Amino acid sequence: MADNRFWRLDAHPKGRDFAAAFSLQHEPVPTPGEGQVLVRNDWLSMDAGTRMWITPRTDGYQPPLPLGTKMVGLCLGRVVESRAPGFAAGDLVRCFGQWADYTVVDPALSGLMKLDERVTDPREHFGALGMNAWTAWAGLVEVAKAQPGETVLVSAAAGATGSLACQIARNLGCKVIGIAGGPDKCRWLVETLGVDVAIDHRNDDIAAELAKIEGGINVYFDNVGGPILDAVLPNMAHYGRIAVCGLVATYDSETPVPGPARFDQVLMRRLTISGFFLPDFMERAASFVPTLRKWLDAGKLVMNFDETVGLENTLDAYAHMLGGGNIGKVIVRVRS
Amino acid sequence: MADNRFWRLDAHPKGRDFAAAFSLQHEPVPTPGEGQVLVRNDWLSMDAGTRMWITPRTDGYQPPLPLGTKMVGLCLGRVVESRAPGFAAGDLVRCFGQWADYTVVDPALSGLMKLDERVTDPREHFGALGMNAWTAWAGLVEVAKAQPGETVLVSAAAGATGSLACQIARNLGCKVIGIAGGPDKCRWLVETLGVDVAIDHRNDDIAAELAKIEGGINVYFDNVGGPILDAVLPNMAHYGRIAVCGLVATYDSETPVPGPARFDQVLMRRLTISGFFLPDFMERAASFVPTLRKWLDAGKLVMNFDETVGLENTLDAYAHMLGGGNIGKVIVRVRS
Repeated sequence: MADNRFWRLDAHPKGRDFAAAFSLQHEPVPTPGEGQVLVRNDWLSMDAGTRMWITPRTDGYQPPLPLGTKMVGLCLGRVVESRAPGFAAGDLVRCFGQWADYTVVDPALSGLMKLDERVTDPREHFGALGMNAWTAWAGLVEVAKAQPGETVLVSAAAGATGSLACQIARNLGCKVIGIAGGPDKCRWLVETLGVDVAIDHRNDDIAAELAKIEGGINVYFDNVGGPILDAVLPNMAHYGRIAVCGLVATYDSETPVPGPARFDQVLMRRLTISGFFLPDFMERAASFVPTLRKWLDAGKLVMNFDETVGLENTLDAYAHMLGGGNIGKVIVRVRS
Repeated sequence: MADNRFWRLDAHPKGRDFAAAFSLQHEPVPTPGEGQVLVRNDWLSMDAGTRMWITPRTDGYQPPLPLGTKMVGLCLGRVVESRAPGFAAGDLVRCFGQWADYTVVDPALSGLMKLDERVTDPREHFGALGMNAWTAWAGLVEVAKAQPGETVLVSAAAGATGSLACQIARNLGCKVIGIAGGPDKCRWLVETLGVDVAIDHRNDDIAAELAKIEGGINVYFDNVGGPILDAVLPNMAHYGRIAVCGLVATYDSETPVPGPARFDQVLMRRLTISGFFLPDFMERAASFVPTLRKWLDAGKLVMNFDETVGLENTLDAYAHMLGGGNIGKVIVRVRS
């Protein structure tokens, strides 16, 4: 019987010490039950949001993952065996599955979705057509209602969601400002993604750079929270909108994180701050996926894949992503 | 020539030491210029928002009042002489005028408005038909979109805007929870205003009381910011809306005020926080004033007037209001 390797969550990680928190386990390849589907994973998506699920906090947007269970995340692969209607062996699919060679999922609970085989690089289902792109669209268009000609600021702009948010904003006709760490990322933002201004949070005075923006910031797509939000608030335009997509600056903190020091600006500038998460917008996908596809085909929505090879190296990829070492989307190719 | 007394802002007040910051001056009654109107003030409205205009901060929602000029605020009185179209001697009017016996205003800049003479108590133009009521409506209905059956929380609930927000929410069919300081205010909220639950922030554990609310808080009408907001955030319902009307807890602080410690809940509960101020909603008044009038006439929108007599006692009334000593609306009757 074939072997299935999987990552087990043994303890809540301290900071980014994942080696002490996860172990690579072996089991026979699982058998799908009635209504379930067995998927052979080709790629795993490394996403900052999952960091919240492996803390003991019970006030996150979903309950924490129980210790002793398989780590979960977005997977891209092919159906090996289906006992559920609508799926057949060989289908290219994406789902919330397990960090493993094989994942068994219930289609409804896992968001199992058949994917368009005509996309040249299947990894684009983690890129321009992936959940990060959907999230970027939801935040910019549905939540913050970015309009052509407005100024859009994106933090963690060289990350997966951030880089897509920059390009979607640009494609919508907005002026785009990206914040990223280090000159390489900033160069990539300007030269490859067509961002108007890149701010290097490691080397630039963010508040001073933001203060130079004529007319202020109409929309802030916030992936990080923390001190960057403090610098942004007094530089928002009146009636500006902030879409809070993530608070990466706070996820692996062991101690309480101070709130936004310039919260008074919410009143002074009549700002709207909205937290959002993608599942609330999944039903609207049919309304925007064709646009993303059109932009992908036209070369107007590109993704840089930062690929680690081998399931056994997943923890390195995860820490790399959370540490912001990446440009673009961090994925794990399960087998070389 | 008749005498006009007026309050001059001489210095930025420290805390609530207004005697050191203002002086009562005399001058001849001013003459309106072309396009202006001279109003004899009958009542002055004491509003917390004006506290911001007399700080040196330049990042508020309007520039600070210059030192050495007349203090401004909402006035209710009668036109003495009009050199502007649409206004005539004897008209009952409300405007942003001066803390004085007489005020000279430009109709457009001051929001000068002719008032309905048929209202039995003209003070209701500072009450159920006043700017506090308009503000309460704008925050609850236009900004937070409170729906019948939802749970609405109001802070500074025994103040002018807060008490009207409680009643408007009740009249809309919401469950209403009010936070106020002390048992007298709490009793008034429940017995006179029909609030469902009153929380005494001086004697109750706010967070513990809020945690008892089944289903969480759908709408928070926030007049104060500060620690109460910290207690509220983790007790909001998912998709809850917070209308930030005021941040009284911060206005007279000399030092930076910490941001909301539980800002993470914005993401976790997909909350929307919106700062707003009334001038943005003035144009929509015709759509809601008839409803306020109907409720006033039906006895469903009542105001308790906390009246100080004599322009010379204005500073006492102002400090009384900012200190939260009042139940309902603090006004100054200019002459006995």
